[in-house]
Amino acid sequence: MQKPTLPKGTRDFGPEQMRKRLFIFDTIRQTFQRFGFQPLETPSMENLSVLMGKYGDEGDQLLFKILNSGDFAAHLTEADLQSGSKKITPKIAEKGLRYDLTVPFARYVVMNRNSLTLPFKRYQMQPVWRADRPQKGRYREFYQCDADVVGTDSLLCEAEIVLMIHEVFRNLGVADFTLKINNRKILAGIAEVIGAPGQEGALSVAIDKLDKIGKEKVLDELRERGFSEEAIVKLEPMFESGDTDESSIIGKLKTWLAGSDTATQGITELEQTLQLVEQYGLADSNVEIDPTLARGLSYYTGAIFEVKANGVSIGSVSGGGRYDNLTGAFGMPGLSGVGISFGVDRIYDVMDELNLFPASAGQGTQVLIIPFDAEARSVALPLLSTLRSAGIAAEAYPDLAKVKKMLDYANAKAIPFVVLIGSEEVQTGLLTLKNMVTGEQQKVAADALMQIVLA
Amino acid sequence: MQKPTLPKGTRDFGPEQMRKRLFIFDTIRQTFQRFGFQPLETPSMENLSVLMGKYGDEGDQLLFKILNSGDFAAHLTEADLQSGSKKITPKIAEKGLRYDLTVPFARYVVMNRNSLTLPFKRYQMQPVWRADRPQKGRYREFYQCDADVVGTDSLLCEAEIVLMIHEVFRNLGVADFTLKINNRKILAGIAEVIGAPGQEGALSVAIDKLDKIGKEKVLDELRERGFSEEAIVKLEPMFESGDTDESSIIGKLKTWLAGSDTATQGITELEQTLQLVEQYGLADSNVEIDPTLARGLSYYTGAIFEVKANGVSIGSVSGGGRYDNLTGAFGMPGLSGVGISFGVDRIYDVMDELNLFPASAGQGTQVLIIPFDAEARSVALPLLSTLRSAGIAAEAYPDLAKVKKMLDYANAKAIPFVVLIGSEEVQTGLLTLKNMVTGEQQKVAADALMQIVLA
Repeated sequence: MQKPTLPKGTRDFGPEQMRKRLFIFDTIRQTFQRFGFQPLETPSMENLSVLMGKYGDEGDQLLFKILNSGDFAAHLTEADLQSGSKKITPKIAEKGLRYDLTVPFARYVVMNRNSLTLPFKRYQMQPVWRADRPQKGRYREFYQCDADVVGTDSLLCEAEIVLMIHEVFRNLGVADFTLKINNRKILAGIAEVIGAPGQEGALSVAIDKLDKIGKEKVLDELRERGFSEEAIVKLEPMFESGDTDESSIIGKLKTWLAGSDTATQGITELEQTLQLVEQYGLADSNVEIDPTLARGLSYYTGAIFEVKANGVSIGSVSGGGRYDNLTGAFGMPGLSGVGISFGVDRIYDVMDELNLFPASAGQGTQVLIIPFDAEARSVALPLLSTLRSAGIAAEAYPDLAKVKKMLDYANAKAIPFVVLIGSEEVQTGLLTLKNMVTGEQQKVAADALMQIVLA
Repeated sequence: MQKPTLPKGTRDFGPEQMRKRLFIFDTIRQTFQRFGFQPLETPSMENLSVLMGKYGDEGDQLLFKILNSGDFAAHLTEADLQSGSKKITPKIAEKGLRYDLTVPFARYVVMNRNSLTLPFKRYQMQPVWRADRPQKGRYREFYQCDADVVGTDSLLCEAEIVLMIHEVFRNLGVADFTLKINNRKILAGIAEVIGAPGQEGALSVAIDKLDKIGKEKVLDELRERGFSEEAIVKLEPMFESGDTDESSIIGKLKTWLAGSDTATQGITELEQTLQLVEQYGLADSNVEIDPTLARGLSYYTGAIFEVKANGVSIGSVSGGGRYDNLTGAFGMPGLSGVGISFGVDRIYDVMDELNLFPASAGQGTQVLIIPFDAEARSVALPLLSTLRSAGIAAEAYPDLAKVKKMLDYANAKAIPFVVLIGSEEVQTGLLTLKNMVTGEQQKVAADALMQIVLA
């Protein structure tokens, strides 16, 4: 018999990993809710007519398509075969797995436009699927945790996202992170002032790689993309670093980009957003203005955000921005919104590498009861009920086995307390409590046992 | 432009539904954990070699298959086309969406056999997909919530499941339910004593329909399935109802089935399970022995469970049983286990119909702050931070709009408290708090506001 395997690029999450992942999910969910975002879930499959054409040609290729049920090949002809896989696909597959949470969200908004009250704040935490080549840190199934507000262009929403990012990472215990912020209008203005108006897309794609390939290679790429030497010289102020002080960065941008109304508007938006953030009384802001921050997605039109954890070489753990036309592709133009996405897999890697998971995030069963014989169960089972009623995760070893085997079980599950019940315990009513961490063993009454476990 | 649609048999879950669903998920998860079950998640897609042949021919048909990426049709020939869809499928699809949580669990156990400590108690709460014909209450994507323990045949596990079922439904607030329990060995013994040994499968399939089609039609079906009139006459004691007292039902079964060792063993197991349940001190047990309870799945070999909510005509909301050979299909025979599955969609329907959701399960944002102008934000934003630090879900209306529109927003989101902040409030520091349920409006300081909201 063949040994079963997993599809490449997919993973099982065993108990220890799952408990840590659940800690991350719960923390993000609670923060989203505390900020007034409401939960939404959409189906894993969407009609391909909804998904196709939304992620570019490459995206279309990376969609997992689902074979139609029944006799899907009934109408396939030899001519179809010769036309190739790409032409055959729409004839045998009408559904695909969602590629992100944004397009399903847009579809939901359009389908429910008459019953939704705007502004609509929703969060969504579900897996997405991409038929990408699997590699370290890149999977074919992974979770996205998105929060978006649509139907308003108030900068208060940008400020809220800055606040929420701080809240999420503080609640997770990831204190040392940098939240980079920029505005697409500033990038558009830069394109204008260097004499390449409208080229901010190409500019963004190249600049996006600054962290990875360095300034010189970015400039080479810009040359390849047709930017003139004059434009490249004019771009110099962009790479001038040194300032971390917000007001001096903003001051320099204002001077450099004074010729562009678009840039000036973007700078004003950035300034106002940061002023609003200040009004919340946010202590120890981790915000950094970065005029080179581009982020790949072309649909951003205003603020853009990116979060990296410091002290680890793991890419961004969160990112987002403002867009002006979420639902345009579905015939509902002009709906502005701003959103943020948290990458659970990378956050997990950061917290694991920096040892940031609290002990409670790994805790499963707290008490294992070991009854030595059938009679001992008359004491063990009511005790189980009592412990559970007090909210304590507890279980009894189900079989009559050797003590060593049962203690090994407790150790394997990292259960901190074991209660041993034999004939002596049944007679005296005093239980033997073993602390599996210290090895200490003591005789206690049920009441005292509860106190010790709950402490 | 075409209006976007959902694939048939799938659903969006909007905010109100989602909050209620999350209440169900959280309650089940907490109960599972309190009973010592550990979380597991497996990928949505499995290799078809893992899934096929595990659910019968019909199941194989109902699997959603995923089209291979890239040039999947490159090696398809005209001969393939003529051989039909069923023969083409394995050439163009090697993965499928999971059909239940049991087969992925078995696959996980086999793949991790060397690192798992037995007995292994896991729970899993994930969606499954079936290409079934959609109809009322039947969807193509739905959640299963399973808890299983494998690697032990201790009846304590059966007792734990009975306890856990009571705990889940009590924690959900579904007090009025019936937990039917039976044992497959009793059904096997019945087949023996009526002179149809080994026919318990066919017997089960027919008897499974007793609730739906009644006794006479069940007997007709048995005749069609080749059961003799003599066998059918001998089956009569099975339909004798009237007893609800456990010990008298068990007494009668013992007498009727005394000639079958298998049945006697099943009755003993049932008896011992119920004795264990009693030892826990379970008050108001909702357990009912039902010798006609069959449940469809052929892999059950011992106890079987089924839960129905009373007062609604919705099918079973939970079911499970013991099996002897979970992992046999993957080359690891003899692993016994017992499991239970909770159907979230049906539980939702029951709770919705009987109005059992607690108010807190629907609660989103608790406080909406309405700043009347930019200046008011200097009071509104710090207040937002204070409320959220106290764990209160709060948001500010982001735009400057008409008061009516903003109050409508609060009502649409069912936000119980609104804080109005204008120039007067900024000057005096006293806030206007409006209770959206009673309509009452009062001036309060921030401290007092917190007390009222938290009350």
